[in-house]
Amino acid sequence: MRIARITTTYGPRSVVQEDNRWREIRDPFAGELEFTGVDHPIQGVRLLAPVQPTVVLGMAHNGSADQRVLPPQAFMKSARTVTGPGDPIQLNDHVGQVNVETELAVVIRRTCRNLTAVEVPTAILGYTIGNDVTAADQVPLDDKMTQAKNGDGFTPIGPWIETELDPVRVPMTVEVNGIQVAAADTAQLAWNITEQLVYLTSYLTLGAGDIILTGCPGTLAPVKPGDVSTLTIDGIGTLSNPVRSVPRHQL
Amino acid sequence: MRIARITTTYGPRSVVQEDNRWREIRDPFAGELEFTGVDHPIQGVRLLAPVQPTVVLGMAHNGSADQRVLPPQAFMKSARTVTGPGDPIQLNDHVGQVNVETELAVVIRRTCRNLTAVEVPTAILGYTIGNDVTAADQVPLDDKMTQAKNGDGFTPIGPWIETELDPVRVPMTVEVNGIQVAAADTAQLAWNITEQLVYLTSYLTLGAGDIILTGCPGTLAPVKPGDVSTLTIDGIGTLSNPVRSVPRHQL
Repeated sequence: MRIARITTTYGPRSVVQEDNRWREIRDPFAGELEFTGVDHPIQGVRLLAPVQPTVVLGMAHNGSADQRVLPPQAFMKSARTVTGPGDPIQLNDHVGQVNVETELAVVIRRTCRNLTAVEVPTAILGYTIGNDVTAADQVPLDDKMTQAKNGDGFTPIGPWIETELDPVRVPMTVEVNGIQVAAADTAQLAWNITEQLVYLTSYLTLGAGDIILTGCPGTLAPVKPGDVSTLTIDGIGTLSNPVRSVPRHQL
Repeated sequence: MRIARITTTYGPRSVVQEDNRWREIRDPFAGELEFTGVDHPIQGVRLLAPVQPTVVLGMAHNGSADQRVLPPQAFMKSARTVTGPGDPIQLNDHVGQVNVETELAVVIRRTCRNLTAVEVPTAILGYTIGNDVTAADQVPLDDKMTQAKNGDGFTPIGPWIETELDPVRVPMTVEVNGIQVAAADTAQLAWNITEQLVYLTSYLTLGAGDIILTGCPGTLAPVKPGDVSTLTIDGIGTLSNPVRSVPRHQL
């Protein structure tokens, strides 16, 4: 099932896809979905970030099996960086080189703390595409990654949440201006998604709508103003965002 | 002026103190405060965290002048860790030693990005007391501080926002079970509040209600379950929180 969030004349609404329409639902996190009775055509609606997270975590050094020698570690991104399909990634000259990164993003379903491995599936609503935009030149300057990870529009997510995906070996690509730069799959991640959620929830509480960016298995590409970043994950879809330059004093 | 947030029978409301009453306001961030006409007695109301931040940042290694040789650096705390006066700080055995930390907390008034020093005052609504609770044993294990800073109830703030405070040399103390453990003032911070906001907003956007924990000038104290932490900042007031143990599998 696909769960999206769209604009309507009366505000943003959550919807699920059924045949050729989006059907409005009251609460994407409800155990049993309740439909409002209002439908929208598939074509022509504007998709938003499928959730509005309170907490956005990204797994550090998790892109390849050899990184498993390091303990798992995570950084936090500002919820203000989250945007949806088509929204601009905004670059400022003074942060240096910026990369886009295709990552499988976990969408949390409910309040969870100290999950055991067997409890993890009940804590996940589904998966979406996460673009963990990173100002690469800032990483060596700030090991906490606050400077690297929090520019405006630095966490596009979408286009929707897929609830049925098996996350074990999911192929993904990154394209810039329509040219594929890298391809990989989630089997290359050092710590898998179950391990990540057991680790993270042993230190903090997550809740409905929170996002885990699960790590970048080499699916990154440098971008510059004027580029279009297009991330694809098999079984979910495609997330495209334009890259813009914003002069520092117009911010 | 003091701006607080209180519980009422019809939900949480923002209020300002006037003589012997709390006067309800519609929006604490409005340029001109609008009163609803409803007042509450000063005594007997329950105070909540005075704001609900989207972004909570803490300044790293900012507690003494000699740390100015290091570049400024900040970590992010989960907004889910924010609680109010009297709410419990929850400890889990497996995180090790936990400290409470008295810090002057800046409350942001409006969306701000790339602030210049002269713009900083217009971006600040006021100041409150922040308790930057830290699982000290986790800091050497995780330089990103995600493990150390995000336990349940790890960011008590309050009891209210003081809008008139001059932040340059503000005395503060930390007490455990009524016994003072440390005292200091904000003049000891390596990077002052104007410098912090110029630095932070050069990398990310802040918005109304966001919180900056400005650094701990030695005002820290270890705590254990059963303790009561009491933080005092001159010109603001006192923030007390009990410390509780929560067995891992009851979380």
